[in-house]
Amino acid sequence: MIAYPRRQQELRSLVQRLGVAQLDAINWNLMDLALIHVTFSAERNYEQLEFVGDAVVKLAAAEFLLKAYPQLKVGEFTALRSVLVSDRILAKIADSFGFDRYLLVAASAKSDPAGRDSRLADSFEAVLAALYLSTQDLSLIRSWLDEQFQPLAEEILADPARQNYKAALQNWTQGHQKTLPEYRTQETGNTHNDPHRFVAEVWIQGRCLGQGMGRSRKAAEQAAAQEAFLVLSRQES
Amino acid sequence: MIAYPRRQQELRSLVQRLGVAQLDAINWNLMDLALIHVTFSAERNYEQLEFVGDAVVKLAAAEFLLKAYPQLKVGEFTALRSVLVSDRILAKIADSFGFDRYLLVAASAKSDPAGRDSRLADSFEAVLAALYLSTQDLSLIRSWLDEQFQPLAEEILADPARQNYKAALQNWTQGHQKTLPEYRTQETGNTHNDPHRFVAEVWIQGRCLGQGMGRSRKAAEQAAAQEAFLVLSRQES
Repeated sequence: MIAYPRRQQELRSLVQRLGVAQLDAINWNLMDLALIHVTFSAERNYEQLEFVGDAVVKLAAAEFLLKAYPQLKVGEFTALRSVLVSDRILAKIADSFGFDRYLLVAASAKSDPAGRDSRLADSFEAVLAALYLSTQDLSLIRSWLDEQFQPLAEEILADPARQNYKAALQNWTQGHQKTLPEYRTQETGNTHNDPHRFVAEVWIQGRCLGQGMGRSRKAAEQAAAQEAFLVLSRQES
Repeated sequence: MIAYPRRQQELRSLVQRLGVAQLDAINWNLMDLALIHVTFSAERNYEQLEFVGDAVVKLAAAEFLLKAYPQLKVGEFTALRSVLVSDRILAKIADSFGFDRYLLVAASAKSDPAGRDSRLADSFEAVLAALYLSTQDLSLIRSWLDEQFQPLAEEILADPARQNYKAALQNWTQGHQKTLPEYRTQETGNTHNDPHRFVAEVWIQGRCLGQGMGRSRKAAEQAAAQEAFLVLSRQES
């Protein structure tokens, strides 16, 4: 039980907004912890939960995608998931639930808008960890989180660029940065038809923005381009 | 139920070797799938399970580390986990259970030793996913996997280098490659004491081998060096 009844009430109201029905199953101490930033308390904050939460959100996204789109190729699952669990998307979801109102942050940190997105994404992951650890499964998470993921996944999949990501990525970098993506591709084995035979990285302005594997050089580069394109195009929206 | 009694028997024997007690809880179709390489069947193989399994193993490792070493700093959790879930370690664990004997692979792929480690690691992740999906929790996984992680974590933590990873990494690259690690460090915000204020990458021979965050430039670079050092030094053993 948390010491302050008002905090307890606030946390209940957040959890209800998320759409979690079984309030009795929740470990409220963990939920409290999940919404304390390190600048508010150096000893008692969400950092450990966030460490668990990044795996929880990846697992939840994987299960959602397998169920919702059983026909997709594995490369597409990976690219879609990397967008769904990106800081940008998680911050957006957290923001839509008004996480800002529940997160305890030092005033000095609040005045730093650059950190806002990462605080929102991190505390969102921590909340997912608190819910996961309450029951040791995803039963408090999947129903409402799937609803958040669904329209985002539809939007990404509806994108006509996804048929040819190398071309889409090149258009994007030429339009935005007057540069071309650079591919670094290696052959890791010599087995015909092995989907891991080629490994590609795509570099843009000195940063590796995507990685991919494939049966051919071209397939690996398409997979890398897909990841980079989805990350970049989501950052814009 | 799987069509071939002999395969069923083999899978049961593997699961018993792992140390899973509740055989009745296992979805044997998934377990079968987890041990089929894409070169054996392009339609029915472990690729989708592997996609789920990489999140399952991260989650299992996170829970193990939090329970076994509650006193560690978050940066240390992250570095330790990145070693525990690395392909190299997962392949080693899979190998110790004789996964090679159970994995269905085309002869052409078997003759490619370069792919062996990644096949072992990937099928290990797929088996974890099959066990996770059988019960929708980690109850068939944690007990025996924790026992695998424990001595590995002890070994990593006993390493005297971990007090100063920048120095340890420099020694390593000078000794092995006659090069120096290169740090690329950015200030992402200006909040005093924010553990994400600085983000560092460490580059060795054109590859980014570690990333880290910290309250100071030095702390972020130590965290990045730690990740790279642990990865490189594990590759040696």
